[in-house]
Amino acid sequence: MAELNVRFFSNCLHRTVEFRMLLPNEERKDIPWEEEKHRPEDMKTILLLHGYTGDGDIWVNRDEATNLNIAVVAPSGENGFWLDAEATGRQYASYVGVELIDYIRRTFGIAKTPDKTGVMGLSMGGFGALHTALAYPEAFGSCAALSSALIHHEVAKMKEGEGNSVANYAYYRECFGEPSKLLESDNNPETLVKKIKADGRKMPRIFMACGTEDFLLEPNRRFHEFLVNEGIEHVYEESEGVHDMVFWSKYSSIFMPQMF
Amino acid sequence: MAELNVRFFSNCLHRTVEFRMLLPNEERKDIPWEEEKHRPEDMKTILLLHGYTGDGDIWVNRDEATNLNIAVVAPSGENGFWLDAEATGRQYASYVGVELIDYIRRTFGIAKTPDKTGVMGLSMGGFGALHTALAYPEAFGSCAALSSALIHHEVAKMKEGEGNSVANYAYYRECFGEPSKLLESDNNPETLVKKIKADGRKMPRIFMACGTEDFLLEPNRRFHEFLVNEGIEHVYEESEGVHDMVFWSKYSSIFMPQMF
Amino acid sequence: MAELNVRFFSNCLHRTVEFRMLLPNEERKDIPWEEEKHRPEDMKTILLLHGYTGDGDIWVNRDEATNLNIAVVAPSGENGFWLDAEATGRQYASYVGVELIDYIRRTFGIAKTPDKTGVMGLSMGGFGALHTALAYPEAFGSCAALSSALIHHEVAKMKEGEGNSVANYAYYRECFGEPSKLLESDNNPETLVKKIKADGRKMPRIFMACGTEDFLLEPNRRFHEFLVNEGIEHVYEESEGVHDMVFWSKYSSIFMPQMF
Amino acid sequence: MAELNVRFFSNCLHRTVEFRMLLPNEERKDIPWEEEKHRPEDMKTILLLHGYTGDGDIWVNRDEATNLNIAVVAPSGENGFWLDAEATGRQYASYVGVELIDYIRRTFGIAKTPDKTGVMGLSMGGFGALHTALAYPEAFGSCAALSSALIHHEVAKMKEGEGNSVANYAYYRECFGEPSKLLESDNNPETLVKKIKADGRKMPRIFMACGTEDFLLEPNRRFHEFLVNEGIEHVYEESEGVHDMVFWSKYSSIFMPQMF
Repeated sequence: MAELNVRFFSNCLHRTVEFRMLLPNEERKDIPWEEEKHRPEDMKTILLLHGYTGDGDIWVNRDEATNLNIAVVAPSGENGFWLDAEATGRQYASYVGVELIDYIRRTFGIAKTPDKTGVMGLSMGGFGALHTALAYPEAFGSCAALSSALIHHEVAKMKEGEGNSVANYAYYRECFGEPSKLLESDNNPETLVKKIKADGRKMPRIFMACGTEDFLLEPNRRFHEFLVNEGIEHVYEESEGVHDMVFWSKYSSIFMPQMF
Repeated sequence: MAELNVRFFSNCLHRTVEFRMLLPNEERKDIPWEEEKHRPEDMKTILLLHGYTGDGDIWVNRDEATNLNIAVVAPSGENGFWLDAEATGRQYASYVGVELIDYIRRTFGIAKTPDKTGVMGLSMGGFGALHTALAYPEAFGSCAALSSALIHHEVAKMKEGEGNSVANYAYYRECFGEPSKLLESDNNPETLVKKIKADGRKMPRIFMACGTEDFLLEPNRRFHEFLVNEGIEHVYEESEGVHDMVFWSKYSSIFMPQMF
Repeated sequence: MAELNVRFFSNCLHRTVEFRMLLPNEERKDIPWEEEKHRPEDMKTILLLHGYTGDGDIWVNRDEATNLNIAVVAPSGENGFWLDAEATGRQYASYVGVELIDYIRRTFGIAKTPDKTGVMGLSMGGFGALHTALAYPEAFGSCAALSSALIHHEVAKMKEGEGNSVANYAYYRECFGEPSKLLESDNNPETLVKKIKADGRKMPRIFMACGTEDFLLEPNRRFHEFLVNEGIEHVYEESEGVHDMVFWSKYSSIFMPQMF
Repeated sequence: MAELNVRFFSNCLHRTVEFRMLLPNEERKDIPWEEEKHRPEDMKTILLLHGYTGDGDIWVNRDEATNLNIAVVAPSGENGFWLDAEATGRQYASYVGVELIDYIRRTFGIAKTPDKTGVMGLSMGGFGALHTALAYPEAFGSCAALSSALIHHEVAKMKEGEGNSVANYAYYRECFGEPSKLLESDNNPETLVKKIKADGRKMPRIFMACGTEDFLLEPNRRFHEFLVNEGIEHVYEESEGVHDMVFWSKYSSIFMPQMF
């Protein structure tokens, strides 16, 4: 599995950015069974979205990604909730969903069709995985959302000067826009689901998981119920676990083979 | 000249960040005159601040930094104008002026006194160099500000919905705070100069340069006049040049030896 | 846990080299139990040596290293068996055992005493861990050698033109020197053990492990018996396992807490 | 200009290796004249070979490479003189001339034809540029050799135990093979020139330069005369200069536009 670090100018973020990448295109000849893994015609791509406080580190199991012939692209989202904010250069949704996908298509010839392109994330990145796939269903055929920070209903109720133990009101307003308008906006994944349905576009396949001891369990159940009520086919799993890498490793291993 | 890439958790930015670094601590034995350059007791440090659209790339001449025995620390500021914004995790001034300086002190044992610590920047980073040194004069003995984006008077006049060709109003409000309050705030370097004077603290040594064809010439002249009027000793140079690396290479070479 | 990439000129290798590093010196304030982990006065260092075909990747568990307050330094050894070869610029033993330790002492102020300095490796790096600690017992208080390629007796019997499925005769002669002289030379860890005993110097603490299905089991048993016969106290463990990361993860977790 | 760091397994070197890369495939939309530079159909590739003591750092002018639409690929050659040595895993000529070219073709879709593929180097890398282009003329349409270490006639005369101030005999024997057989071998660029002529294959275009104060001037004149005597069209330039980056910057700027 080749590993890359790529630094390029993002028009959406108005600056030079970096992302990390795994690319299963080695032709290793000293180990016979490694060589067999090289199948360029069958390569899939997962955009990997980190959580709050993280950066573009790659947290999936490399051997599993190699065996599944999956390239992994891990951008950095600087706590921006993977949304298009109002301020110039804070367009994270467009960055990962359009510009970055286009860049890796052009540069590496991968992620050309939605059936070979997925997005996976944890916590803030779980929210991002759902939002990105639902905002750009023509690009992403599937998404896997682990322990997702589906906090849009809580943010929508915030008032000037409020906030919580994680961040202040100014932070949430910058990421999600004016709270009172959030639920109607495209920053709400539910809005996007309804639009895709209304437009008759193809819904991305959705995989969700949350630990039963996770502090984000209720928002995950709430979104699961929303999908049930909307009649959207999806996978939703709960099992013992908290908001940590043990849970995320388990479910990235479970969902990766199912995404394609 | 050793080169480092360092990734650590920033409490100010609430996430994992990276910075690049040059450290003149090689003891090269195959080239006699290189070995002589290793003088740990005399090492200085320059914090290097990039401009708008940039990242923590190192644009000073490595041979010059080696010969002057200067370590260079280049953080990334994501177009944040090197200021403390209101939103959680957007405290760039505290990040570079306090947290990063503290981290490199603890990790490398350098930048322990202001006479061995300077800050240099270009464009947005020129603004940042002035602001950082003036906000933390106990840490920084000198600053070099090249083609500085001293645009605070322009930003202060912006109204909701306005902006300019570089960025929109939301961007400027997020970086500088409410425009109508900017000039009185600590985001205005002039305010900081007056405070240092009033408190009788030691003013950092100031080096400024701007090209006569630079679109930022007027704001630089304005700040120069402000310093003259306040009776602040400083170096101010103009010469033929535009807003480009030719000018910045020239003046980083001129100012680096004078900063210590 | 901070992560570093350091590029500097090595006099032993006669060229610019890079190493990776984990440094447990973050003062993370958003998670109370993380902040407690920052104990600079107690920091230990492990030099981590990779196996044949590897490079300076860090394969120990980062959370464990953080909790144990261990810095990890991972150089690249380009299949050189961590030995001083004859050719200029192929002095890997001196590089890691003297030059690199000296460099990290100077740069980071760690690894200053043998009780806080260990070396661990797998396969070729297991051989290297034993050899390095035994060659420089004043620097290293302990070594952990996993599935070690203790193939010196096999190499000693090689004749011109021979070799094996891993590499040819020229390769082994370059790494180990003239095979017929290997067993008497300092490239043989047994020679080093006898010298330390004869000189009455302090023997580093030795931890060895090998899987019972590993193709290197016999050479490991042989070295274990040698140590028994020499009356050298050491830990030797066998358990089910092959020559893979599952085994190395298990035993790096077992040995790291015992090394200091 | 995008910058990449790529880490992959090399079968020729029998280990994980890294190379750096510039890729002029940014579509920068904030600066009109930058966007025009993006011409994927016209992209050329230069393999960039470093000198003795160097690593895969990129020393060409990035703006010039961008304007010329040239991707730059900079491998690390660990003082191996860019030749295929006898020992397993020391096949640097095959690595850069075959495996690396094949890898960047597969990964990035560039360097597909010799008219769009060149190789440039300085000092040891100047020797390497000539040798690589002459060993693989079907892959490389041109080479630029700056201040080249064309020391094969000197090495050919070395006797066991000899060497010089740069390195010992063992080093030269490992890189170049048995000295007494060097001049007839494919490690001698002159042998390769004669073979290409004899076989009627297309000779790569050759650009050479050396400073008149360079200690390698005589070997460069000697190779130039050899080419003249063989009737090989080539560019050979001498001008005031020593063995340093000033000279190499000058001639990389002069030769890059002529190579394609």
